Amino acid sequence: MQLKVYLSGEIHTDWREEIAHGVRDAGLDVSLSGPVTDHAASDDCGVAILGAEDNKFWHDRKGALLNSIRTRKGIEDADVVVVRFGDEYKQWNAAFDAGYAAALGKSLIILHGPHHAHALKEVDAAAQAVAETPAQVVDLLRYVLTGALPA
Amino acid sequence: MQLKVYLSGEIHTDWREEIAHGVRDAGLDVSLSGPVTDHAASDDCGVAILGAEDNKFWHDRKGALLNSIRTRKGIEDADVVVVRFGDEYKQWNAAFDAGYAAALGKSLIILHGPHHAHALKEVDAAAQAVAETPAQVVDLLRYVLTGALPA
Amino acid sequence: MQLKVYLSGEIHTDWREEIAHGVRDAGLDVSLSGPVTDHAASDDCGVAILGAEDNKFWHDRKGALLNSIRTRKGIEDADVVVVRFGDEYKQWNAAFDAGYAAALGKSLIILHGPHHAHALKEVDAAAQAVAETPAQVVDLLRYVLTGALPA
Amino acid sequence: MQLKVYLSGEIHTDWREEIAHGVRDAGLDVSLSGPVTDHAASDDCGVAILGAEDNKFWHDRKGALLNSIRTRKGIEDADVVVVRFGDEYKQWNAAFDAGYAAALGKSLIILHGPHHAHALKEVDAAAQAVAETPAQVVDLLRYVLTGALPA
Amino acid sequence: MQLKVYLSGEIHTDWREEIAHGVRDAGLDVSLSGPVTDHAASDDCGVAILGAEDNKFWHDRKGALLNSIRTRKGIEDADVVVVRFGDEYKQWNAAFDAGYAAALGKSLIILHGPHHAHALKEVDAAAQAVAETPAQVVDLLRYVLTGALPA
Amino acid sequence: MQLKVYLSGEIHTDWREEIAHGVRDAGLDVSLSGPVTDHAASDDCGVAILGAEDNKFWHDRKGALLNSIRTRKGIEDADVVVVRFGDEYKQWNAAFDAGYAAALGKSLIILHGPHHAHALKEVDAAAQAVAETPAQVVDLLRYVLTGALPA
Amino acid sequence: MQLKVYLSGEIHTDWREEIAHGVRDAGLDVSLSGPVTDHAASDDCGVAILGAEDNKFWHDRKGALLNSIRTRKGIEDADVVVVRFGDEYKQWNAAFDAGYAAALGKSLIILHGPHHAHALKEVDAAAQAVAETPAQVVDLLRYVLTGALPA
Amino acid sequence: MQLKVYLSGEIHTDWREEIAHGVRDAGLDVSLSGPVTDHAASDDCGVAILGAEDNKFWHDRKGALLNSIRTRKGIEDADVVVVRFGDEYKQWNAAFDAGYAAALGKSLIILHGPHHAHALKEVDAAAQAVAETPAQVVDLLRYVLTGALPA
Repeated sequence: MQLKVYLSGEIHTDWREEIAHGVRDAGLDVSLSGPVTDHAASDDCGVAILGAEDNKFWHDRKGALLNSIRTRKGIEDADVVVVRFGDEYKQWNAAFDAGYAAALGKSLIILHGPHHAHALKEVDAAAQAVAETPAQVVDLLRYVLTGALPA
Repeated sequence: MQLKVYLSGEIHTDWREEIAHGVRDAGLDVSLSGPVTDHAASDDCGVAILGAEDNKFWHDRKGALLNSIRTRKGIEDADVVVVRFGDEYKQWNAAFDAGYAAALGKSLIILHGPHHAHALKEVDAAAQAVAETPAQVVDLLRYVLTGALPA
Repeated sequence: MQLKVYLSGEIHTDWREEIAHGVRDAGLDVSLSGPVTDHAASDDCGVAILGAEDNKFWHDRKGALLNSIRTRKGIEDADVVVVRFGDEYKQWNAAFDAGYAAALGKSLIILHGPHHAHALKEVDAAAQAVAETPAQVVDLLRYVLTGALPA
Repeated sequence: MQLKVYLSGEIHTDWREEIAHGVRDAGLDVSLSGPVTDHAASDDCGVAILGAEDNKFWHDRKGALLNSIRTRKGIEDADVVVVRFGDEYKQWNAAFDAGYAAALGKSLIILHGPHHAHALKEVDAAAQAVAETPAQVVDLLRYVLTGALPA
Repeated sequence: MQLKVYLSGEIHTDWREEIAHGVRDAGLDVSLSGPVTDHAASDDCGVAILGAEDNKFWHDRKGALLNSIRTRKGIEDADVVVVRFGDEYKQWNAAFDAGYAAALGKSLIILHGPHHAHALKEVDAAAQAVAETPAQVVDLLRYVLTGALPA
Repeated sequence: MQLKVYLSGEIHTDWREEIAHGVRDAGLDVSLSGPVTDHAASDDCGVAILGAEDNKFWHDRKGALLNSIRTRKGIEDADVVVVRFGDEYKQWNAAFDAGYAAALGKSLIILHGPHHAHALKEVDAAAQAVAETPAQVVDLLRYVLTGALPA
Repeated sequence: MQLKVYLSGEIHTDWREEIAHGVRDAGLDVSLSGPVTDHAASDDCGVAILGAEDNKFWHDRKGALLNSIRTRKGIEDADVVVVRFGDEYKQWNAAFDAGYAAALGKSLIILHGPHHAHALKEVDAAAQAVAETPAQVVDLLRYVLTGALPA
Repeated sequence: MQLKVYLSGEIHTDWREEIAHGVRDAGLDVSLSGPVTDHAASDDCGVAILGAEDNKFWHDRKGALLNSIRTRKGIEDADVVVVRFGDEYKQWNAAFDAGYAAALGKSLIILHGPHHAHALKEVDAAAQAVAETPAQVVDLLRYVLTGALPA
């Protein structure tokens, strides 16, 4: 069994790398994907390729539509969608991805600190697991794939 | 033609009533639905009916799962899902609903002030319209149903 | 909002009537359906209409296939599927119905005594609510439809 | 042609190994998967990774939700779902899996002794085959793949 | 509960009328539909409305495509599809309708004499019931709707 | 049987009215819908309700997205989609609607003069009927509903 | 591009081999599948593996259900379903497969002599091509894959 | 991540080659497909393989149906559908493909000169990006796959 895992949400900490390293160290057959995590590129990609916009709203729209090609592909192909909520920003796109994945019947793992628990209760309730650390996500994936629990 | 419209999001202002009045005044064939908007009931419904929980996490889970019966029914039955982002709280459930509705191919109208535009760009990009006021939502629904524009 | 509710499972106690009375007393817009609850008719319907079978296995098959017309129609049309596990019999058809409903994305309410909790943990985990009494099911439906909690 | 086969149900006898050996001996292009079959790990996986729960109900819930990632992936990817009902335990998760697979349109093979036939009649009626022994399951898979019947 | 029933197949005997009378006499909430049963109109409808064709193949094609509007609508809306195989003609369109309905997950009742049993074994195997007479079909529908067996 | 029919395409001739009159005169149980046919309103609806745009591209985008709420609702609810290609304009939205409807499995009737036949061959090939006049469309709908051919 | 092609229908002539040879000679990237074509094995497979039946009807049922595992897998995986109608037998299973494939949106090629054209008009009308010879089927597949027409 | 990209529309300029070269030069993991671009073969393929037709309408129909096998396969397998509108011909099949792809939820890139913008506004509004040059399409695909923007 191989698992395709999409890593959605926060782009300002190295949680994706922690999961990638953990998965590699554990020798798991996991294929990871995620959004473009370069904040500036992600914001400006639309106008950089398709031409400038005077209006910031449409500047943003062009970028968001372009990024959605990658996001939708990643989520639709995934077996498991991990959504990380960090401490900064509104992160509405993360919650949007979680809802999108839930409607498609994907298995969801939500990753956040305990202080977000009440605000995320509807999102958590749609999930198969709620983790606090990337290491726990690795443990979850290892168990799903191999049945092995942490020592 | 009748439109079934689900009103998701903010529960602390009277935007749902404004839309309901506007739709009634305009004589539109619109059927409105939405979540339970009594904040306390919505938070405590699970334990109130099914028994108390010591752990707040599971207290919340019981409520969120129960509320999801109504939310999913409302969104799945809707032709149009309006999602309102207000000025307070994280409102991740609103963004989750938007993602859920988008994945089901529902027409989306996002309702928010201009200061939220950048943070909501991915959500807006999945929508058929981005409005700033409930009156605009009424105008949108009237146009969809009758072809009439505001005077 | 109207809710279509399918009542699956145990046929030897009057739990369906309790829910029907509760729903009627509360004035809820709920449409109830369920399987044929006459045990003998349900077992023998196939051969009674289509001709006897020497082999009990095919006697059962004819009946089960015929009953599945009603069961599938009821579950597929439902917004909410309530599955009751009683104290007697294997009740594998109840668990089968729960799995069938879960795969279709129906909201599930599982109704059973606490002694069944461990054996039903996979079924409960797919549900929006786990209730112990028919009165709780009525309370759940009232809350979903009206937002009102028990006094 | 390759067949992906998910082996659901009983975890206390070696029926999965019998099928695996039979399939290997027959040189069939079959890819087998199944749930985690270590009973203790399966029961405790949720709390072992995500933290202990005082309440057994939520202890079980955490584990069941985690196991569902693997179960759903296995069933959704499968061409054929084999469900084994043994002689012990309630095995409601086995019947749940059968219903889940049936709703997804998977081909089902139900494996049980004749004494369970009446109690499983609704499950059997949704199946392409009802077998009594793992060797018969191997014969069924060989016939589907190669057209060869047992000597 | 209401059942929508599509009556496919043979158009040269009065089996549809027998079922219609039986359903009416039994007071069942059944809505019946079916193809155009005027053989000549059914063959010539395409060219009669859209213009003549020199080539019989395209004469037939125009009619068959037009008839498919009604057939597909009837089958897609139905809860139960009854397919009657009579004694004359190839009746490949009846078997095609059965396959179409099966792929959509409709409940199927196949109606034919015992001499057709071997030739129809694949079609029968996809069905919930195999009947020999229209009266049996009425009995099946009555049981599904009311739970009542024939006296 | 009732037919829901969406009338897509050309908005500069009175073909919709011809079909509406014909259907009414024939007493057919047909429910007609279609896009907003006021060309100016259709072009400017987005900015009229949601605010002006300097850039014509986004002016158009706002209107097209708003109109898509009605168009998608109409097509998704329809049993039959009639698409009319007239003699003026590019009419790419008509062909887009035809493709959208075809992918959803809707029955298609294409309405155009013979000079467009070669250019529309891919669109016609996805259709159940190709008509030249609104009167023929009425005849097609009458036949589908009643089996009656033109005198 | 690779094409997965399922070859349904007649099992008493060597048309499948002709297509297989033609495809190989043309060097096409085509993956062929089909039912078990050993008539006796196909009829008796169910009882040979799962035990004898006194009643021919259930003897046939066991075989037909078992064969449906392969048939459904083949059709559901296919890009193109070729259905061959020969000169003997009722061949209702061939027409059933055609209907099943049509409902799944598969591309259909129907292969039959001109004398069957009228009886197969509904089946042909659901197809992308109607061929008379296996060589034409090879030509069709070559054109689809390479754009090359016969010399 | 690999992207499967279908290139629909104009067949009289070398835009497909430009994209193919650009993708190759950039070392992107992109799999390109498209329709048969030999205009004469595409028009005549049906009659060349399946026999001549006196009537041009059916000559065209045979070809269009045959081409649809490749077109549907290409679109249904694609992650991204690029649709090019050139300066000549009606190009209704291009708009049809865009509608077909949109209804399937594919990511769309529309490629056209600015003079077509108003006529294509409904098509553009369903797209993730609107480009003017093949080089921009390559830049879009590179960004989606690698996150890299043009230098």
